[in-house]
Amino acid sequence: MKIAIINGPNLNLIGTRETDIYGGETFEHYFEKLRKKYERIDFDYFQSNVEGELINEIQSAAQKMDGIILNAGAYTHTSIAIGDAVAAVKIPVVEVHISNIEAREEFRKYSHISAKCAGTIFGFGLKGYLLAVESFLN
Amino acid sequence: MKIAIINGPNLNLIGTRETDIYGGETFEHYFEKLRKKYERIDFDYFQSNVEGELINEIQSAAQKMDGIILNAGAYTHTSIAIGDAVAAVKIPVVEVHISNIEAREEFRKYSHISAKCAGTIFGFGLKGYLLAVESFLN
Amino acid sequence: MKIAIINGPNLNLIGTRETDIYGGETFEHYFEKLRKKYERIDFDYFQSNVEGELINEIQSAAQKMDGIILNAGAYTHTSIAIGDAVAAVKIPVVEVHISNIEAREEFRKYSHISAKCAGTIFGFGLKGYLLAVESFLN
Amino acid sequence: MKIAIINGPNLNLIGTRETDIYGGETFEHYFEKLRKKYERIDFDYFQSNVEGELINEIQSAAQKMDGIILNAGAYTHTSIAIGDAVAAVKIPVVEVHISNIEAREEFRKYSHISAKCAGTIFGFGLKGYLLAVESFLN
Amino acid sequence: MKIAIINGPNLNLIGTRETDIYGGETFEHYFEKLRKKYERIDFDYFQSNVEGELINEIQSAAQKMDGIILNAGAYTHTSIAIGDAVAAVKIPVVEVHISNIEAREEFRKYSHISAKCAGTIFGFGLKGYLLAVESFLN
Amino acid sequence: MKIAIINGPNLNLIGTRETDIYGGETFEHYFEKLRKKYERIDFDYFQSNVEGELINEIQSAAQKMDGIILNAGAYTHTSIAIGDAVAAVKIPVVEVHISNIEAREEFRKYSHISAKCAGTIFGFGLKGYLLAVESFLN
Amino acid sequence: MKIAIINGPNLNLIGTRETDIYGGETFEHYFEKLRKKYERIDFDYFQSNVEGELINEIQSAAQKMDGIILNAGAYTHTSIAIGDAVAAVKIPVVEVHISNIEAREEFRKYSHISAKCAGTIFGFGLKGYLLAVESFLN
Amino acid sequence: MKIAIINGPNLNLIGTRETDIYGGETFEHYFEKLRKKYERIDFDYFQSNVEGELINEIQSAAQKMDGIILNAGAYTHTSIAIGDAVAAVKIPVVEVHISNIEAREEFRKYSHISAKCAGTIFGFGLKGYLLAVESFLN
Amino acid sequence: MKIAIINGPNLNLIGTRETDIYGGETFEHYFEKLRKKYERIDFDYFQSNVEGELINEIQSAAQKMDGIILNAGAYTHTSIAIGDAVAAVKIPVVEVHISNIEAREEFRKYSHISAKCAGTIFGFGLKGYLLAVESFLN
Amino acid sequence: MKIAIINGPNLNLIGTRETDIYGGETFEHYFEKLRKKYERIDFDYFQSNVEGELINEIQSAAQKMDGIILNAGAYTHTSIAIGDAVAAVKIPVVEVHISNIEAREEFRKYSHISAKCAGTIFGFGLKGYLLAVESFLN
Amino acid sequence: MKIAIINGPNLNLIGTRETDIYGGETFEHYFEKLRKKYERIDFDYFQSNVEGELINEIQSAAQKMDGIILNAGAYTHTSIAIGDAVAAVKIPVVEVHISNIEAREEFRKYSHISAKCAGTIFGFGLKGYLLAVESFLN
Amino acid sequence: MKIAIINGPNLNLIGTRETDIYGGETFEHYFEKLRKKYERIDFDYFQSNVEGELINEIQSAAQKMDGIILNAGAYTHTSIAIGDAVAAVKIPVVEVHISNIEAREEFRKYSHISAKCAGTIFGFGLKGYLLAVESFLN
Repeated sequence: MKIAIINGPNLNLIGTRETDIYGGETFEHYFEKLRKKYERIDFDYFQSNVEGELINEIQSAAQKMDGIILNAGAYTHTSIAIGDAVAAVKIPVVEVHISNIEAREEFRKYSHISAKCAGTIFGFGLKGYLLAVESFLN
Repeated sequence: MKIAIINGPNLNLIGTRETDIYGGETFEHYFEKLRKKYERIDFDYFQSNVEGELINEIQSAAQKMDGIILNAGAYTHTSIAIGDAVAAVKIPVVEVHISNIEAREEFRKYSHISAKCAGTIFGFGLKGYLLAVESFLN
Repeated sequence: MKIAIINGPNLNLIGTRETDIYGGETFEHYFEKLRKKYERIDFDYFQSNVEGELINEIQSAAQKMDGIILNAGAYTHTSIAIGDAVAAVKIPVVEVHISNIEAREEFRKYSHISAKCAGTIFGFGLKGYLLAVESFLN
Repeated sequence: MKIAIINGPNLNLIGTRETDIYGGETFEHYFEKLRKKYERIDFDYFQSNVEGELINEIQSAAQKMDGIILNAGAYTHTSIAIGDAVAAVKIPVVEVHISNIEAREEFRKYSHISAKCAGTIFGFGLKGYLLAVESFLN
Repeated sequence: MKIAIINGPNLNLIGTRETDIYGGETFEHYFEKLRKKYERIDFDYFQSNVEGELINEIQSAAQKMDGIILNAGAYTHTSIAIGDAVAAVKIPVVEVHISNIEAREEFRKYSHISAKCAGTIFGFGLKGYLLAVESFLN
Repeated sequence: MKIAIINGPNLNLIGTRETDIYGGETFEHYFEKLRKKYERIDFDYFQSNVEGELINEIQSAAQKMDGIILNAGAYTHTSIAIGDAVAAVKIPVVEVHISNIEAREEFRKYSHISAKCAGTIFGFGLKGYLLAVESFLN
Repeated sequence: MKIAIINGPNLNLIGTRETDIYGGETFEHYFEKLRKKYERIDFDYFQSNVEGELINEIQSAAQKMDGIILNAGAYTHTSIAIGDAVAAVKIPVVEVHISNIEAREEFRKYSHISAKCAGTIFGFGLKGYLLAVESFLN
Repeated sequence: MKIAIINGPNLNLIGTRETDIYGGETFEHYFEKLRKKYERIDFDYFQSNVEGELINEIQSAAQKMDGIILNAGAYTHTSIAIGDAVAAVKIPVVEVHISNIEAREEFRKYSHISAKCAGTIFGFGLKGYLLAVESFLN
Repeated sequence: MKIAIINGPNLNLIGTRETDIYGGETFEHYFEKLRKKYERIDFDYFQSNVEGELINEIQSAAQKMDGIILNAGAYTHTSIAIGDAVAAVKIPVVEVHISNIEAREEFRKYSHISAKCAGTIFGFGLKGYLLAVESFLN
Repeated sequence: MKIAIINGPNLNLIGTRETDIYGGETFEHYFEKLRKKYERIDFDYFQSNVEGELINEIQSAAQKMDGIILNAGAYTHTSIAIGDAVAAVKIPVVEVHISNIEAREEFRKYSHISAKCAGTIFGFGLKGYLLAVESFLN
Repeated sequence: MKIAIINGPNLNLIGTRETDIYGGETFEHYFEKLRKKYERIDFDYFQSNVEGELINEIQSAAQKMDGIILNAGAYTHTSIAIGDAVAAVKIPVVEVHISNIEAREEFRKYSHISAKCAGTIFGFGLKGYLLAVESFLN
Repeated sequence: MKIAIINGPNLNLIGTRETDIYGGETFEHYFEKLRKKYERIDFDYFQSNVEGELINEIQSAAQKMDGIILNAGAYTHTSIAIGDAVAAVKIPVVEVHISNIEAREEFRKYSHISAKCAGTIFGFGLKGYLLAVESFLN
């Protein structure tokens, strides 16, 4: 099984930025643990701050992977274009957010992406990625 | 570990009602599979169509369980009182919805409960309960 | 033919409460006249102030009656859960309101129930129940 | 007893237009059945696509009839002037809609006319006219 | 003089829940002090998490008491049905809230009940009940 | 000097319709008094319930009169087309309303016409027409 | 007959400020012409930039004058207090605006005052004051 | 091929009215050029200020023409009834506006008609009619 | 104990103005009764129609009194500046309104002041001032 | 004549994605037909999923082409920056959309770009590009 | 060069009020430093809690100064009248706010004044006044 | 001291584009003057039309500079992601806009960035950059 993890803007700063919201562990560190736990899964990891590069990656992952775990970060709330890309690809996309987006600012409550996804998980910290992997396995 | 599963209005009809949205498996049937898979967990199950009885159960579960999996059904979108109950108890509450509530009617997008929960999972069908259990284990 | 009449909150006060809006006849008195006029119909009557008990009754009536006449009172405007219950049952549900809800407060204009019903009748006073019965006959 | 039936724009197409919503029976055909069933009632029928002609007819019917059954069609949602006409006449006006207007587009939910009427009936197809006649009889 | 005190959802947790907002004194403890201070008044106390049971109690208190002190808790903001019940009874109802509801979340600012009450008092902590009693005396 | 007075829908009923708002004097009666008071002015009077006929009249009056006094009645609030007609003609148009439209229903507060007029007068009863004539004289 | 003219904020600048909107004539100059034309009327003139002083003047004029011509300037759109003052006094108040307030910014369309006045006149430039005087005479 | 061109209110003034927006050429003049360029097409032309007459014409054209080019003018933004007429006929309707309606007033941005049409063209001046013809040819 | 009572615009008219809402007793008369009942309290009374003078008085009272009873009248709904003044002073401010502001016009439901006050009392008529004094005593 | 065609996000998938909306023909295939039909026009074609690259291309095309045909895809509805770019360049820009954007989701109805364009064409499928070319020719 | 500094309501409390937002330095103290730094500039300082007095001062400063630095405090968000005054005067007005008004309550985000000013500076604490002076110098 | 100046979309066109709004001086030319005036400051300049590249630059500048002057152009109003980047970095960010954004289109009034900045300056033309530099110095 091959799963692409695609992270959006500012998620490269996880572990150093606003640690009261996102925790103090870097994504790279967490990703290593994830790889070890699921050795038989072939992971692909991509991060970008550029909206269009995320669309490129979603289109490209759809050619060669079995599923996508997508954390579009702040673009979740503004990008119809990423929502269109998710709707256009045929493999399942599971949406993850690290923090509880319902408990934050008003503008983080609207999503252009959730309705196009197979499922959504938020509020569990980095463990949300693990739960997303589980959703592909079970 | 002791986990209470609390289901809200009309969820007793799962498996027979609008099966294109909720699937054809009854909750009782699914619950049996859940119990078998997690034999060491002590589950408690409660369903009611009455808003106040759900509040009673949340308050009561908080005295004796380690966590709550809550699917408040349609009350999710109208009940400030259940949201208050979740905020008032000290054990973690994980919110689950069977369908993709972001892909349905407009009035199902607002939640009085999500912001008070430890995390939220929706769109995975009944498997969402399994993922919620996993969130307590990992 | 078997028809359930289900009345919601405060409708037990009809005839004594705000008689300029609802008239001075009690529902029990009117119900007797209705029974006599339609002797071959088997009526079932239920009233409750509790939202969840109305849901229970709708689910239960759907097992044994041919149709439901529902006046959900003030819950009409706030209860997504009753709307879900109406959508979930397979027998036709006809909605009745005693007063002209379009000519009263703004918040009485929105309904979570009408769109799920076979038809709606309002503004005719208690005679609206008679018209609802007629809608099943013709 | 003399009753005027006044139909608004595009209702002359009933039976041929969008039959999945309005059914396949023409209003003329249905009207004949209505006449036969209520032989002692003196009916007057008028249809127009012109907003001002409907106002003229309402004013004129008020001079010689005992009641009006009004289906203002799409003008229901935009015409303050027809609403004023209904408010200006002294005989009772009963509003009918063939389809369930609460289950259609958002803009069909607002009415300038309902609040001025004696009562409103919708969702029963052409039978709504029969129920309106009944409301004058009982 | 006979006064009914009716408390709504989650108010049974006062003194243990979110003590920074509601203070650390239980309602029972405070109620005892109130009884002693106003020995000639005959108090009746009722609490429920169920919306319909509060309606039942308001209707029932109206048969035998001289006034009602009502703290509908979170239902204040969502229940048209309780507002209708207050409007339907003939004895005066005084509304009390423990916290300053204007200084909290946006959705706590709208009330379906205040406009139907004789008067409203909020923000004084439990002392609000004492002031409500005073409003009946003077 | 030649002035056209153009009245919109239902204004032919002035004096008989809702006399608590519009008074009991017919427009024809008032118009006679106006003619006598301003003998040197050449008046033209037109009334219609049809939106399009009002537009025709405005266009036509613009060819032969010096000014228009327009009371578009209920079309004031819905007719962009009449507003366009007023904007399209080159002679001054003065808007009159008999009642105080700011003290009535919410939907009478929006006007598509006022912004295109030379001036607006409302709330003075039929005397508003006299003041409009004065505005042309001074 | 005694008439008070009360002008609100920035109206002391008429004739020098934004002359494309308000014209180039000072109010003092115009006022002199008005006095001469209506020699038998006893005028009182007051201008202030202070909201509360306008309220004081309205209250005070109500003791000794027969009517008030009020141009509250920008306070028209924000002052509930001036609206209350107009509602509290027993002599008629006629509202005047120099410019066509419907043809300017959105926030100039709402008025807290019009609904409390005997009538409103706007868009005629300074002549609006003359028409207001006429409305007292006829 | 037979094409009906139907123009709505005030479009008979094209060429003389607000020429900065609509240009100085009359529609008749332009129509002659159109006829000459497409000699093999059989054109039908109709203009009215009356909303109901436009509906009549759309219904009538649908009986004998191959397509309709519709410029409903200001009714575009208020007439649900014309939108219904377009939806009711079976031949394709292409919508044209002379000016760039997106660059004008806010209320010209909402259309009840576009969604029912085969296509929409605006902003090209009178040339929009030529492009609409081309859309039928290509 | 020293308490300042500060009344806002038009409250000097209490007893003479709109007596169906505010009652027929003047504030001065009521104030005398209040003084007598609470002889040991040192009262300070101030009324103004000017928004800024009320701010001045709040700032000044904060230097020498133990508490403020504030009825800001119509400024309650428009004055952020008075709200800021209340937030800036260190002594408790109790808000009073004579009428039930929730049962009146829509624009009287929003308050810039309540959230900054120690508590709020409304709907009890002039007795609200007495309850406010009681709130300082107990 | 030199015309740049600039396509936005996900338009590289045309022909394979959601073919019920966009049809089954790839843009490349269609583009070839376009080139052949208009042999004397010099076309430039550019597609990108990156918002900023589209802005770069618009700025750059403005240096060397005679006109731009722009289909900004989903950015149409969110990008003020592309709208600014269109406003900043001096050559005419014609907007094209393949589907009928007025008949799709609510959020596709708002455009930041249309108001800055010479004209807009939508709902004709790929033929919209041909019509846009025609608009430059005629 | 002569510059007037005009401060609005509650700004006389700077240094003692809510020091976590506004800092602990009084304006008088800061003003002395400003004077010393810019010895060749002739400063004028005015503070008032009364809206109309600020208007008076703006009008008066426009007669004798070269520019105005205006901090209208809470009136920024409610006073159309001060906005009108700024628009009416001919010397440049620079707006200053001490705190970051975008990071505070929702109602502090709207300004009636900014659009009429030469420029706006906020969030820099008292240093904002220095930057405003610089904007006049360079 | 090291300061990064980061400019967003279309700001490379300053001096040639819409010169009535932005003036006729290029940013490069102005930047040279700025460098000369503040010789001891080490400036870094970056411009991009790509949202993600601006985020990259903000993150990168935060590693090596002492402060950032950010003009995010049109992204100011749509980019939550840039707002997140500003919140994530630890050096102060000062926001600048060349034009008076409060005096332009409605959609330019909302900012996702201001609340996260140390301060904001707008309306002073290119001089705003100089004032921003001053804010770092004093």
